[in-house]
Amino acid sequence: MMKELRVGIVGYGFIGRMHTIAYINIPLYYDPFPADIKLVGVCAASQASCSRAMHQAGYEFCTTDYRELVRRDDINVINCCAPNYLHYDILIEAMKYGKDIYCEKPLAMNVAEAREIVQLAKETGIKNQMTLMYRFVPAIMRAKQLVEEGFLGRVFSFRAAYLHSGYTDPKRPMSWRLDKSQGGGGALYDLGSHILDLVRYLLGDFESVYAMTETFIKERPLPNEPDKMAKVEVDDISILMLRMKNGAIGTLEASRLATGVNDELRIEIHGSEGAIRFNLMDPNWLEVYDNRDKSGPIGGDRGFKKIETIQRYPKPAAFPGPKFSIGWTRYHIASLYDFVTHIIEDTPTSPNFEDGLRVQEVMEAAYKSAEEQSWISISSI
Amino acid sequence: MMKELRVGIVGYGFIGRMHTIAYINIPLYYDPFPADIKLVGVCAASQASCSRAMHQAGYEFCTTDYRELVRRDDINVINCCAPNYLHYDILIEAMKYGKDIYCEKPLAMNVAEAREIVQLAKETGIKNQMTLMYRFVPAIMRAKQLVEEGFLGRVFSFRAAYLHSGYTDPKRPMSWRLDKSQGGGGALYDLGSHILDLVRYLLGDFESVYAMTETFIKERPLPNEPDKMAKVEVDDISILMLRMKNGAIGTLEASRLATGVNDELRIEIHGSEGAIRFNLMDPNWLEVYDNRDKSGPIGGDRGFKKIETIQRYPKPAAFPGPKFSIGWTRYHIASLYDFVTHIIEDTPTSPNFEDGLRVQEVMEAAYKSAEEQSWISISSI
Amino acid sequence: MMKELRVGIVGYGFIGRMHTIAYINIPLYYDPFPADIKLVGVCAASQASCSRAMHQAGYEFCTTDYRELVRRDDINVINCCAPNYLHYDILIEAMKYGKDIYCEKPLAMNVAEAREIVQLAKETGIKNQMTLMYRFVPAIMRAKQLVEEGFLGRVFSFRAAYLHSGYTDPKRPMSWRLDKSQGGGGALYDLGSHILDLVRYLLGDFESVYAMTETFIKERPLPNEPDKMAKVEVDDISILMLRMKNGAIGTLEASRLATGVNDELRIEIHGSEGAIRFNLMDPNWLEVYDNRDKSGPIGGDRGFKKIETIQRYPKPAAFPGPKFSIGWTRYHIASLYDFVTHIIEDTPTSPNFEDGLRVQEVMEAAYKSAEEQSWISISSI
Amino acid sequence: MMKELRVGIVGYGFIGRMHTIAYINIPLYYDPFPADIKLVGVCAASQASCSRAMHQAGYEFCTTDYRELVRRDDINVINCCAPNYLHYDILIEAMKYGKDIYCEKPLAMNVAEAREIVQLAKETGIKNQMTLMYRFVPAIMRAKQLVEEGFLGRVFSFRAAYLHSGYTDPKRPMSWRLDKSQGGGGALYDLGSHILDLVRYLLGDFESVYAMTETFIKERPLPNEPDKMAKVEVDDISILMLRMKNGAIGTLEASRLATGVNDELRIEIHGSEGAIRFNLMDPNWLEVYDNRDKSGPIGGDRGFKKIETIQRYPKPAAFPGPKFSIGWTRYHIASLYDFVTHIIEDTPTSPNFEDGLRVQEVMEAAYKSAEEQSWISISSI
Repeated sequence: MMKELRVGIVGYGFIGRMHTIAYINIPLYYDPFPADIKLVGVCAASQASCSRAMHQAGYEFCTTDYRELVRRDDINVINCCAPNYLHYDILIEAMKYGKDIYCEKPLAMNVAEAREIVQLAKETGIKNQMTLMYRFVPAIMRAKQLVEEGFLGRVFSFRAAYLHSGYTDPKRPMSWRLDKSQGGGGALYDLGSHILDLVRYLLGDFESVYAMTETFIKERPLPNEPDKMAKVEVDDISILMLRMKNGAIGTLEASRLATGVNDELRIEIHGSEGAIRFNLMDPNWLEVYDNRDKSGPIGGDRGFKKIETIQRYPKPAAFPGPKFSIGWTRYHIASLYDFVTHIIEDTPTSPNFEDGLRVQEVMEAAYKSAEEQSWISISSI
Repeated sequence: MMKELRVGIVGYGFIGRMHTIAYINIPLYYDPFPADIKLVGVCAASQASCSRAMHQAGYEFCTTDYRELVRRDDINVINCCAPNYLHYDILIEAMKYGKDIYCEKPLAMNVAEAREIVQLAKETGIKNQMTLMYRFVPAIMRAKQLVEEGFLGRVFSFRAAYLHSGYTDPKRPMSWRLDKSQGGGGALYDLGSHILDLVRYLLGDFESVYAMTETFIKERPLPNEPDKMAKVEVDDISILMLRMKNGAIGTLEASRLATGVNDELRIEIHGSEGAIRFNLMDPNWLEVYDNRDKSGPIGGDRGFKKIETIQRYPKPAAFPGPKFSIGWTRYHIASLYDFVTHIIEDTPTSPNFEDGLRVQEVMEAAYKSAEEQSWISISSI
Repeated sequence: MMKELRVGIVGYGFIGRMHTIAYINIPLYYDPFPADIKLVGVCAASQASCSRAMHQAGYEFCTTDYRELVRRDDINVINCCAPNYLHYDILIEAMKYGKDIYCEKPLAMNVAEAREIVQLAKETGIKNQMTLMYRFVPAIMRAKQLVEEGFLGRVFSFRAAYLHSGYTDPKRPMSWRLDKSQGGGGALYDLGSHILDLVRYLLGDFESVYAMTETFIKERPLPNEPDKMAKVEVDDISILMLRMKNGAIGTLEASRLATGVNDELRIEIHGSEGAIRFNLMDPNWLEVYDNRDKSGPIGGDRGFKKIETIQRYPKPAAFPGPKFSIGWTRYHIASLYDFVTHIIEDTPTSPNFEDGLRVQEVMEAAYKSAEEQSWISISSI
Repeated sequence: MMKELRVGIVGYGFIGRMHTIAYINIPLYYDPFPADIKLVGVCAASQASCSRAMHQAGYEFCTTDYRELVRRDDINVINCCAPNYLHYDILIEAMKYGKDIYCEKPLAMNVAEAREIVQLAKETGIKNQMTLMYRFVPAIMRAKQLVEEGFLGRVFSFRAAYLHSGYTDPKRPMSWRLDKSQGGGGALYDLGSHILDLVRYLLGDFESVYAMTETFIKERPLPNEPDKMAKVEVDDISILMLRMKNGAIGTLEASRLATGVNDELRIEIHGSEGAIRFNLMDPNWLEVYDNRDKSGPIGGDRGFKKIETIQRYPKPAAFPGPKFSIGWTRYHIASLYDFVTHIIEDTPTSPNFEDGLRVQEVMEAAYKSAEEQSWISISSI
């Protein structure tokens, strides 16, 4: 008999809708898909949002109280798509009720919360995974393979950045993402969590961090009262120097004020034997340089090879096949597919809450470093 | 009461599955979407394919005889995803039964068939649209807006190409796409139809054509009998010189032997006032050059602007919003959404069968030109 | 004793000055350079131009009559930098006086002239070379090596173009390059000669040609009488279909109306085993695709490698060394160095007048094709 | 009467030869050039080097003792192309004898030396300029114009890097550039000096710095005794966080271990109104983003414009004209031309020794920061 995944989703804003779309597409893209996915319930911020969710996606049930949702017996998987400050309560409650959980990044508001979450996840044995879906970009999956094969040799240095420009307009109003009490952090939490996870995915654990943060636009209008200004206390830009356990050094930047760019996640790594470059605005390609390749005159034809990663890695896409270009929604589908597969096959998830905690630690260390103006060892957090 | 679209799909191979996925995603991406889409029936090549379609997408009904499908009263929209040689019969039959039709390119095996199809479409008044979905790439939609605003000025010349490399391996077996009696033509039909449609979409009608075609790999193994070779009679590469009614001249190439590239549809247009460049392998960008812009020293800062078209055109995407990168499946969703919207709102479709006929005419003229080694006026076809 | 090259230059406009600069730089870049180069004399259009040449470059002697120059005993090398319509007379005269010759492209006004020139060159045994200096771009030199090593396998097709935009302004006045009686041809002569030579250099001889030419801007103001218009009879744009002796097919375009681009010479070649791409606006790189490389999962990591050709080919530059970027003047220096080395070492030159004749033949065939609207076999010229 | 520049060059290695070539080319590229440049004397490391200099470039005089050269009455301009540890002595001596000086970067071994040099330059009133020739890349000159016009608005952040890969091979032997006592510093001195100067040129003075330095390859073979290893004490990689006086923040990296790249100097700047990007490996282009440009639907066509800077800025090149691509030697010619023009016209030079001192200060502050692990205010140096 086919396993049934009975899904409840907490939060039906932009990202909750993305998760919903991903669920619906999984059986269409991955074939045969050995489970039935039922979109059972949703917790939304308002009745209007409830109606929309039920209409768009066929959720059978809606509530504005997440407790009601996560306690239901007819749901076994919870997607946490609520603002950061609600993660802890939702996750704890859902775990108490034995639900498997797929959670948006960052895991929590701080390391203390994140540790409790991880601890309870271990105790309950529930499946858990973070929405750090850039790990599922084929180019990144190929990069991971290469790193594991030793392609880079000894890693010297890296440059990582996740750059947005959406907040350059000082009239853009206040929101929970700009409010420290609801978001927990600024660009570092929002964007930095993704790129920190990728650096760790590719290069292993962080040893220590030195950070500089800056809030350039220090107040913004309230959303419904444009004449009143609210103070912004989170970082517009965070810049980190990082030392890795493997000896590599590098920089990492998270910026909401990178005028001119749109959704630019970049990573470059230089090792003794090879180098790798990736830019999310060109998501179908991975650039690799092989220092061992000495074919050609005068010590080899030096140059980066721009691999069409498209949908070829880790294995060719079942659908629509390896040769067509992909974009942002595809990574969400692939990431969620990975999670539900681990549920179905009862195998370990990755990136899981513990990976979320590792990111949380380095973010907390970074804020501490910026405040204390000193290097912070991650193990001291 | 909400309009109901009751869909029957003819052909559940790769492309039929893509249409199915597009239908399922329309209400998720476009919100509110004022109709109910029901995936009612499917005509597949085998019982296995039938089972798959019903399981994956919930089709209620399956047959291996398209007549059975298109005659059903509980279906009002037919998607034609069958091999080219079947289009004519399917379309004629479906139109007789008053179905609205969304049809894969090319419209038919030849101009004679295509004309009959167009004629019957006019007589029956059914809604009809071609799957020429690259018109719905945001970059192309922005290009179209610019052209209509007169951005280019007087158009001098263009370079257009649709380049694949999938057939460079001579061991790749024979298939209906390589069989003239089933495909009708080769690279020109398969790839050329898309790029011809785009050139016409942006620059208007063709005046005349001169073509050179070549079949480099003249025989290929049979699919199930690799020791037997079948003759290939269709073009691997077609190269066209074109004269447009607006006076512009240009080249257009369709190739299945473009070693090194993957799915590369390119178009470049030079006009007296501006220029445009696009490459489907970088689908999120449109490059534009404005010859009127004289800001900067010495007659202006010359250069192409690389516009982030992403999901911003013709208007920002409702979901997932304008800023995320997109890929190949997205154009199918947008194209099919456009079709069903025209059904719902009872407005004229585009590109419709007549547009399909226009492409068919220039393809037939091209083959004639290659054979006769002379310029062929499109109006002579 | 070191050989002495005693140079006389015919024409001291832009290109004559470029040749002069190249001579002066040769001993500085190539070290040790086993000859003395003396800039002896110049033939310029006016006394002002004479003064400038003597002042800038130290020419000892100047005349406005080329005969006087080429007959001098104290000169053994002639650079022909005069307008096209003068080449024949200058070259014949110079050869009669036994001078070695370095000549700007195109070789002559037509094939008849070119044949006489080649004939006399053979009879006199003088060293002769064409200024087809793009052969000396390191990226092209690496491409040539690869082709000779069989990197491409069986060549299927190519796309070649040399695109300028300098004539898009209809107010740009008439000049000898636009005057058929002085230039001999239009964009095809001026730009096409370069790219035709490169295609032939890389892919061998042409079999036949079909051409379309167009003059979009049919009259232009006289240089000194802007109210008077002169008729333009040469091509603004020429587009050629070509069949090569090796079976490859392709297109070649020469355009002076390619709005938006600047000095864009492009070549792409697809073969059964590999592909090559080059663009003169990024002259420090050659892109190559190796179809044999199956390393990586699923049949190999497909992708073009962007080789830093810089100054590494055919061997690392003596100065300024292989790693620094280069531009347009560098190819002139390299090309002229090649010529003078052949003089010094008494070895065969390449590209020589005969190569110039080959280009002349295909250009003449192209014009004939455009007029007669039929394929023209090069051997029929 | 035309001014005479009588040049003596100290050091005839690679860079001394480059300066020599630049001198010879100035009158050829800049026309009319109102001075006579005489290459009078050279100080080289050996008699062999002397011979080469005299033969290649026609120097009349050669010595291995710089004092002899700089004291000569028949020389009025000195180019300092010696290793870093000799700069101080050479410059002081040359200034005592009233010579105008063009000096390779970095100015000196440390700030103390640099201050004395600047002080004596002021007292003597000699003309002095640094070889920070990337200021003379047309793209950078255009960037400077844009910055001065306020194009960027309030500057938020920047990313700057100068990346080489030449030292990734651990067998590359020791040299003066790797020896702290002769080079003064490592990648930061060698590469960082260039990019620090560019950041300061475009964004103004530095406020403070935090640095991390690393020596990955800690010993290297001696040049002539490959079995003996010498300790490397200078940085392979230096990474700086910087705070500018204008409030901007950013990172700057100098690396000799950036596997895969060649000579990659990059700078990106984000301001409230615009953004700028440059990469020296594509030296003919400047990318600019104008946040004010709201033409096009939905708030404007967002995107970077890739300006063909080629040879168009600050004004079109007299020769070879604005449209041809340029490379590394061209910046040297332009930079040295700028210097000699200031001598001829008796106008202030820039970048001069004082600009060199500014760079020296931030480099010294960076090393101090790395050692003390604290932010260092530049004014504290």
